[in-house]
Amino acid sequence: MSKLVESLALVKKTLAEVRMYNQASAVLNFDMQTICPKEGMEAQGAVDAFLSNKAFILQKEPAYIEACQYIYDHRGELTAEVCSSEVDAEFDRCLAESLHRDFAREKNITPEMQHERSLAYNKAYVNWLEAKKSKNFSIFAPSLAEVQKIQVREANLNEDRKETPYDTLFDGYERELTSRDLDDCFNECKERLVPLLKRIMASKKKIRTDFLSRPVTDEAQKTCTKYLLETMGFDFNRGAFATTEHPFTTEIGKNDIRVTTHYYPDMFYSNIFSIIHEGGHALFEQNQPKENYSHYIEFNKTMGMHESTSRFYENRIGRSREFISLIYPKCCELFPNVFEGVSENEFYESMNTVTPSLIRTEADEFTYTFHIIIRYEIEKMIVNGGDKVDISALPKLWNDKYQEYLGIRPENDAVGILQDVHWTSGFGYFPTYALGNMYNAMYYNKMASEFDIKSAVRFGDFNKINSWMKQNVWARADREAPKTWIKNITGRDFTPKDFLDYLENKYGEIYEL
Amino acid sequence: MSKLVESLALVKKTLAEVRMYNQASAVLNFDMQTICPKEGMEAQGAVDAFLSNKAFILQKEPAYIEACQYIYDHRGELTAEVCSSEVDAEFDRCLAESLHRDFAREKNITPEMQHERSLAYNKAYVNWLEAKKSKNFSIFAPSLAEVQKIQVREANLNEDRKETPYDTLFDGYERELTSRDLDDCFNECKERLVPLLKRIMASKKKIRTDFLSRPVTDEAQKTCTKYLLETMGFDFNRGAFATTEHPFTTEIGKNDIRVTTHYYPDMFYSNIFSIIHEGGHALFEQNQPKENYSHYIEFNKTMGMHESTSRFYENRIGRSREFISLIYPKCCELFPNVFEGVSENEFYESMNTVTPSLIRTEADEFTYTFHIIIRYEIEKMIVNGGDKVDISALPKLWNDKYQEYLGIRPENDAVGILQDVHWTSGFGYFPTYALGNMYNAMYYNKMASEFDIKSAVRFGDFNKINSWMKQNVWARADREAPKTWIKNITGRDFTPKDFLDYLENKYGEIYEL
Repeated sequence: MSKLVESLALVKKTLAEVRMYNQASAVLNFDMQTICPKEGMEAQGAVDAFLSNKAFILQKEPAYIEACQYIYDHRGELTAEVCSSEVDAEFDRCLAESLHRDFAREKNITPEMQHERSLAYNKAYVNWLEAKKSKNFSIFAPSLAEVQKIQVREANLNEDRKETPYDTLFDGYERELTSRDLDDCFNECKERLVPLLKRIMASKKKIRTDFLSRPVTDEAQKTCTKYLLETMGFDFNRGAFATTEHPFTTEIGKNDIRVTTHYYPDMFYSNIFSIIHEGGHALFEQNQPKENYSHYIEFNKTMGMHESTSRFYENRIGRSREFISLIYPKCCELFPNVFEGVSENEFYESMNTVTPSLIRTEADEFTYTFHIIIRYEIEKMIVNGGDKVDISALPKLWNDKYQEYLGIRPENDAVGILQDVHWTSGFGYFPTYALGNMYNAMYYNKMASEFDIKSAVRFGDFNKINSWMKQNVWARADREAPKTWIKNITGRDFTPKDFLDYLENKYGEIYEL
Repeated sequence: MSKLVESLALVKKTLAEVRMYNQASAVLNFDMQTICPKEGMEAQGAVDAFLSNKAFILQKEPAYIEACQYIYDHRGELTAEVCSSEVDAEFDRCLAESLHRDFAREKNITPEMQHERSLAYNKAYVNWLEAKKSKNFSIFAPSLAEVQKIQVREANLNEDRKETPYDTLFDGYERELTSRDLDDCFNECKERLVPLLKRIMASKKKIRTDFLSRPVTDEAQKTCTKYLLETMGFDFNRGAFATTEHPFTTEIGKNDIRVTTHYYPDMFYSNIFSIIHEGGHALFEQNQPKENYSHYIEFNKTMGMHESTSRFYENRIGRSREFISLIYPKCCELFPNVFEGVSENEFYESMNTVTPSLIRTEADEFTYTFHIIIRYEIEKMIVNGGDKVDISALPKLWNDKYQEYLGIRPENDAVGILQDVHWTSGFGYFPTYALGNMYNAMYYNKMASEFDIKSAVRFGDFNKINSWMKQNVWARADREAPKTWIKNITGRDFTPKDFLDYLENKYGEIYEL
């Protein structure tokens, strides 16, 4: 057996064991968020740490690291002859490259730096909680400076450095895309969305929302959750749902994809869009081709790709007139007091109001992008500005940008710069949320050129939509970087144009512009 | 550091790691029984097997085995000086002995025998399922003979052999007690219960049960579950509940004890007594003294001790007039249609009807003991009879005993000898179920001599009862064998008399004998 074949076998054997530990950790984490009692959490956390450490140690074995390096150095020789088929060879090359990217990122980080990082992030989290609670940015400021210092250092130590430190960090989340791409994209967004928002705000259109806070029971919401997941094509033989404070999706195993949601007694629609969003993530995972299972490249999918799917179902499908029409009768049946005297059109419009607001996670589909642009502009400056950044001046900058783009100003930092947890452990993640919307707008148009999506939604034919997604969007997501991936799906280069056109048309119609 | 101290440290370090793996396995198993989707089970099972194997390997390390042997051989030297206190020394001696018992049981079993055993039990399970489904004992008979052969061989290979092979096997579940004890005990039961059952059957007393199958919702049953656990003193900060087909209790960790129940739409009381039973097991675990946590002797508690607690709460408390009186108003509120026109006394009597029946798990408190006696008599004969046992004659023997003791005869083997899963993996377990009733009857009387239990129940003062249980019944259960334990609690030797007196009084009153 050649050294290349041997190395590949060793890497896969290790990754198979790592996956065992990871699955156990996934179950422990799901358990902690769904049912574990308060005083059981500490021990559960200790078991999780114990197992994670076992997995970590496996990946620090010199023989494993050497094998990873060897297959990367000889990835050109991973051909059909060596790997048994051309398809397998492609997977193996892909694996070699992604393992190498991870190594490049961590290789020059010493154990001391690792320890320092871990302490700094934990401290930042604690300070952030405290700062948010007391609405006082100055409590968090020293930690933010510390996180900045560590992140810049790590960007500079990365062996796979990009043009700027921010580009290096961002590449860790959405590889191949650069801050130039983001600048172009977000500038185009601002050019078109700022004036459009002004027109919407000036519109005389009245949208009825009085019925949205009418009370509903958990039982009815649970039935609704089941109905929506079934409607979307979620496979209950290979998945389950539960409730948690913050909804999420987790892949316990290839045949066990779980979603969670929450039930608010006076916001029945919060569950609806949470579960459609998470259901979208789940469909992505449930529809991975079986042959991908054994190749250990699942971590190659980017967050932008994943968000594109969840937002495709949540917004493009879920908030469409046709989907609202499809679920309106069931909603009337489940929530009779909410829908008393409420027409289908009133339900549709209420789910598509545009309201500039301060909190990202509660933003509507239209204004959401502004929240991301603001965070992107500030975090890029923090990372690339280095020592020259005046951390204490950031809250004002944040508030000024909200004023400029959305016409509103946070009354305190808790609803301003302190609202998100992300910066307690790094930078570069936020743009992936917005990119998801832009990717899906592009592939929505491609799909629409092939069949009548609206009609499929109207008649609940999700099989048609999911099959197209499986074949075009999901099948190669773990083997391609986002730019290549979107071009292969649509035949076009990445652009925010489709997304902006969509917003213009949809909200132009709703607000009668 | 002395070799003894070193050995003890090594053993405890290993057991701490084993506990980590075991906790992960406990969570995986709980997950599989509560939420894991059908097609996710296989992978989950594989992860469980992977982790169990890691724990198994740790306990096969020669250094660990040697250390266990060393502390056992030198257990006399485990004194306050060596172990830092007399209490710690007692725990450590106890640990040395219990590890030694486990070794004695498995020491002479070769890997081949282990493999053969595992295959035979799996096959027996499959054949049992098939036999039960087709109501045909002959399908299971060869497997039963195989299990018999293996169990007898293992009893003979056990280095800690007792008077008969059955005694050796039974000692693995309820140590110190012998088949002589069981014979004495069960003979006394038969002498008093057989004639008493005849008098009950001849009684003219009419008990109303028509309302028991009235429909209830899952939602109301869930509220009832929560109410009952709260009433009993279950600590929700250190436990949780869920639903499963078969109710059980699991210790995920010291501060995480979970119970499950089931909701039948036409048997509201099934949930009630399931959750009180499991809640009893949970109270036992939740009330272990904190200082016991770090001594790794939790597996010392016997099943008889545990069943004594669960049945104490289920039967002695749960089916008492005072408890029914306590929960009657809440039940009326939660299940208004069930309790329409039903008095408190009718509720009490309906929960205490005596009806000879074929299925052990559905038997009432009175007839339950007969089901155990029948199984005990047959399994003792199977084990001690060796080659002389005619396996094919067992179904008739089973049916004859049901005829003799309960006056009814199974119409087929599925509701006869094939009903329980236990014999697919061994013998000696059944008597522990009955012993639990006898232990708790003894300590109930001791408790009653110290305070008015009925009044405490009537007013929901479970704190008083649980505190007594904690101090007298639970605190030393993991350091004492059952006979010593019950004598230390009550000051008396083990006897079924208290249990039989209780049955005679209670059912004499209900059936107006």
